[in-house]
Amino acid sequence: MATTKRADFEAIFPSLRAELLEHAKKYNLPANAMEWLEKAINANVPGGKLNRGLSVPDTALALLGRPLTEEEFKHLSTLGWLTELLQAFFLVSDDIMDTSITRRGQPCWYRHEGVGMIAINDAFMLESGIYIILKKMFRSHPAYVDLVELFHETTWQTELGQLCDLITAPEDKVDLDNFSLEKYMFIVTFKTAYYSFYLPVALALYYLQLATPANLKQAHDILIPLGQYFQIQDDYLDAYGDPAVIGKIGTDIQDNKCSWMINQALKLATPEQRKTLDTAYGRKDQELEAKVKVVYQELDLENVYKKYEESTVADLRAKIAAVDGAEGLKKEVFESFLAKIYKRSK
Amino acid sequence: MATTKRADFEAIFPSLRAELLEHAKKYNLPANAMEWLEKAINANVPGGKLNRGLSVPDTALALLGRPLTEEEFKHLSTLGWLTELLQAFFLVSDDIMDTSITRRGQPCWYRHEGVGMIAINDAFMLESGIYIILKKMFRSHPAYVDLVELFHETTWQTELGQLCDLITAPEDKVDLDNFSLEKYMFIVTFKTAYYSFYLPVALALYYLQLATPANLKQAHDILIPLGQYFQIQDDYLDAYGDPAVIGKIGTDIQDNKCSWMINQALKLATPEQRKTLDTAYGRKDQELEAKVKVVYQELDLENVYKKYEESTVADLRAKIAAVDGAEGLKKEVFESFLAKIYKRSK
Repeated sequence: MATTKRADFEAIFPSLRAELLEHAKKYNLPANAMEWLEKAINANVPGGKLNRGLSVPDTALALLGRPLTEEEFKHLSTLGWLTELLQAFFLVSDDIMDTSITRRGQPCWYRHEGVGMIAINDAFMLESGIYIILKKMFRSHPAYVDLVELFHETTWQTELGQLCDLITAPEDKVDLDNFSLEKYMFIVTFKTAYYSFYLPVALALYYLQLATPANLKQAHDILIPLGQYFQIQDDYLDAYGDPAVIGKIGTDIQDNKCSWMINQALKLATPEQRKTLDTAYGRKDQELEAKVKVVYQELDLENVYKKYEESTVADLRAKIAAVDGAEGLKKEVFESFLAKIYKRSK
Repeated sequence: MATTKRADFEAIFPSLRAELLEHAKKYNLPANAMEWLEKAINANVPGGKLNRGLSVPDTALALLGRPLTEEEFKHLSTLGWLTELLQAFFLVSDDIMDTSITRRGQPCWYRHEGVGMIAINDAFMLESGIYIILKKMFRSHPAYVDLVELFHETTWQTELGQLCDLITAPEDKVDLDNFSLEKYMFIVTFKTAYYSFYLPVALALYYLQLATPANLKQAHDILIPLGQYFQIQDDYLDAYGDPAVIGKIGTDIQDNKCSWMINQALKLATPEQRKTLDTAYGRKDQELEAKVKVVYQELDLENVYKKYEESTVADLRAKIAAVDGAEGLKKEVFESFLAKIYKRSK
């Protein structure tokens, strides 16, 4: 199936950056602040994997079943870049909240020389950029209000997920009683699935005026479980992936993450194993981390995951096969998402 | 002239808080996070002076020249509370960026037990609350899109002002060459005047469907200079106000603030005085602060301010007298703003 070339998608970005800078320039923002704004955009918006952004034109390609016109490509890629702006807003601020060290192989933005907490305001400006560009390019689109409201709602959902994550798994206070599979599913659904999976597809549906209630609901009911599966897989790879392949060493155990693995372990553990988890999880200590991994082995979580994966993928395939195309939705939209995720090793 | 009673305005708040909590509850936000959200709202939204919020119904009273109906009061006060939500979003995050200690006589939100950097996400949720309530209550209002876009634009303007302020006057690096009256005017205009003065009046105009381009322009051209004057007066009171009256001791000099006073001093200083300012401004040291104040005295900044005030107030009065009421705007809107500010002592 036709997909968007990364380079073509990237070629849209400079004009969007120019729009944002123009919208500061017109208010006579002083030169030192203009330079700062440009640096903040460049350091945080491009440079990621662009999966979310590329999904928007890719979804449109699947829906239309033909190449995009030049205008369609420009518009859909712009909407894709707005999902990347939203993600940049989240990542810049999440990195502060999590006291993270690096992001995409670079120091986190707030750790750049002279940045510090100014990064909070930079994150806000990245968020504002979404609405500046929506207004500039889509003010006369019939779905303009829907697009604006979709970004608002997705932002709220992600913030709810982030709140739950932050207070359920603070890095400095381990309390496994606080964890539960219910909270876990809330966090992955709201913190990740809505903005990473539902948002790009909904944007393409709105843009193409195919966002009927039935189509949005079908997309939602496939993409949210798909997003949950993606994050559960991420948690599995953190513990069982090959660091040489995934490009990083898993830190979820030492970081007291409310991950799928620990929640499964809590569900299955004997009282003895539970004691080990209580004393060893969430500590910055390799030996204690190894003890947690032993419990994971004893409980055969690798196999628990594989069973989960097979059953979830079977469910998803059945849902995708049953997609009702009467209002213009296409199975192909979801097939390519699933193909990218199933049995990935990184 | 009729004005809004604070208690009547405050009586609207609980239903708005309930709307926000409901919009989290419907997604099954876990109980610990529901409690957190309610606390974050209660600690940061009510409890301020409410000047911005009250301005919205007050502006409508002046425009209509009659008491508001119950529905009008509810709607206009809601829009007033949205300006307070916007302010809460800014204050929670500004306090982190400025490492402030107290706000409204309480520890800043991020300094509450167990909060810390989670306050960043709380600030985001306060901002999101604006659009949740706008959608809930004004989706069918003819100016709905204008209201949403007005909040977006005001947010962007305030962020530009905050950016300029943060990089022009970092608390830990004094460089008076970095200051200028031009930057100063940019900061006060964008960081304060738009959201504090223009926004509440523009909201009332949109709500009453009186937001013609001519009316918005007239309001802008009076309220922006009025907001500048308000902030300049604030800076004057920081240096010359009576701490017993304003309820706090001025800290602008020690905090390296890019204030009106220091920018006037830089404009008027002899090379000798400039040297004193360079070595004494922005230091956490009472004796050095006193040296700066001596320069302020030598330059008679008190009198420079008083001349500025008289000439600005004369200009504003002339502009207000010249208000063109052909499209429903009224002088009274601006007269009450000016009356509250002129020669205030706190």
